[in-house]
Amino acid sequence: MSVAIVGAGPGDPGLITVRGLELVEAADVLVYDRLVSPELVAKAAEAELIARDELTQRQVNDVLVREGACGLAVVRLKGGDPFVFGRGGEEAAALAAAGIEFEVVPGLSTLTALPSLAGIPLTHRGVSAQVTVVTGTAGDGGELDYVRLGATPGTLVIFMGLRRLERIAAQLIRHGRPFDEPSAVISKLSLPDSHVVVATLGSIATAAAHLESPAVVVVGEVAALELVARDRPERMKVV
Amino acid sequence: MSVAIVGAGPGDPGLITVRGLELVEAADVLVYDRLVSPELVAKAAEAELIARDELTQRQVNDVLVREGACGLAVVRLKGGDPFVFGRGGEEAAALAAAGIEFEVVPGLSTLTALPSLAGIPLTHRGVSAQVTVVTGTAGDGGELDYVRLGATPGTLVIFMGLRRLERIAAQLIRHGRPFDEPSAVISKLSLPDSHVVVATLGSIATAAAHLESPAVVVVGEVAALELVARDRPERMKVV
Repeated sequence: MSVAIVGAGPGDPGLITVRGLELVEAADVLVYDRLVSPELVAKAAEAELIARDELTQRQVNDVLVREGACGLAVVRLKGGDPFVFGRGGEEAAALAAAGIEFEVVPGLSTLTALPSLAGIPLTHRGVSAQVTVVTGTAGDGGELDYVRLGATPGTLVIFMGLRRLERIAAQLIRHGRPFDEPSAVISKLSLPDSHVVVATLGSIATAAAHLESPAVVVVGEVAALELVARDRPERMKVV
Repeated sequence: MSVAIVGAGPGDPGLITVRGLELVEAADVLVYDRLVSPELVAKAAEAELIARDELTQRQVNDVLVREGACGLAVVRLKGGDPFVFGRGGEEAAALAAAGIEFEVVPGLSTLTALPSLAGIPLTHRGVSAQVTVVTGTAGDGGELDYVRLGATPGTLVIFMGLRRLERIAAQLIRHGRPFDEPSAVISKLSLPDSHVVVATLGSIATAAAHLESPAVVVVGEVAALELVARDRPERMKVV
């Protein structure tokens, strides 16, 4: 394969896959996201390094196609998983349209790493049997379907919702979720400066206002649970 | 750490994390699931190997506590992620109760690897903005909440549902999901003999009857999509 779209996982450089690291180490060209660990970028010792930040999505696609067409080992290293709320699909489509061979290596998504790394289960016997996942901004930039989300039982996980959390929480409450429903914000999952804030849905936006991106929001009874484990991020309860 | 609960990912040995593989290679004792790749088990070259299959959950907990208390490097290697529909939580609780130090290393879950490895997106602009995840058997062995699931919009992902798929599909249709809603079964994700069958909700149980576990079921418009990529498992459409 000349081009690989690789998921780097949530942040800790040890949480990339073995196959992903192999490709990074052998890269001639590495196009990397801002949130990818510098330690991982440094593993591409021989590579030309290109920061994705400084490019538009169109330019990223063009770089992958151009360098891939030259037969170079190109790695597009993305935070989390490339296809879970990422834009790996657009890059894959550009490569396919240009007839460039490529592979996709999945990465550990924040969604499924929450239980192991933040101690928050997605489901829990007798507490929640169902998980619903959305992004804080609807795909078309519009509003979430709060009528449905207000009535959906179980755990609600919101990606990229920290900046709009005050509005999101108010709308969920307006559409039927309890003001005092346990809610958590998990910032910088897997990194040494990860933080978890637990509060009520009514107070979570204020309680978590000081946290930094990347962050994920969990609404539901599971947010008040803490799975038994060691080395959890610091957890602040504001209830 | 003396004990580590490690997720092996969906099956391909290259999809374990770098940290997970380090721990496997250094293990004195390896307790491994049936579905974990033999190649990964072989990486624990110096370890005493214990097949989880031959033990009850209680016996597994006891082995981890006993060997961990001796100061041995014990690795509990589990398919997928240890805490996503796994029973890693029970093992962690047993270790904590016994005062044994341990760490948890997340693994790639089938849930978030579906888009990269099977070409099926979880959400898709204009098609589905929401994902709901359940297990084919409710935690208490009872029935799923079909009234809710029938009315929930977007993508429905069902773990461990292949054996009961005929009943699950019939109940979903009875409670409001369209008979002709696209549905897929993905068997052995990430392995060379992976298969995807796409059909309607009304015909998926019959169409997928020949597939083997582990398998995951996707119900919703996204099941009919195929993300652009190479090296997908063979896909059979029965519509």
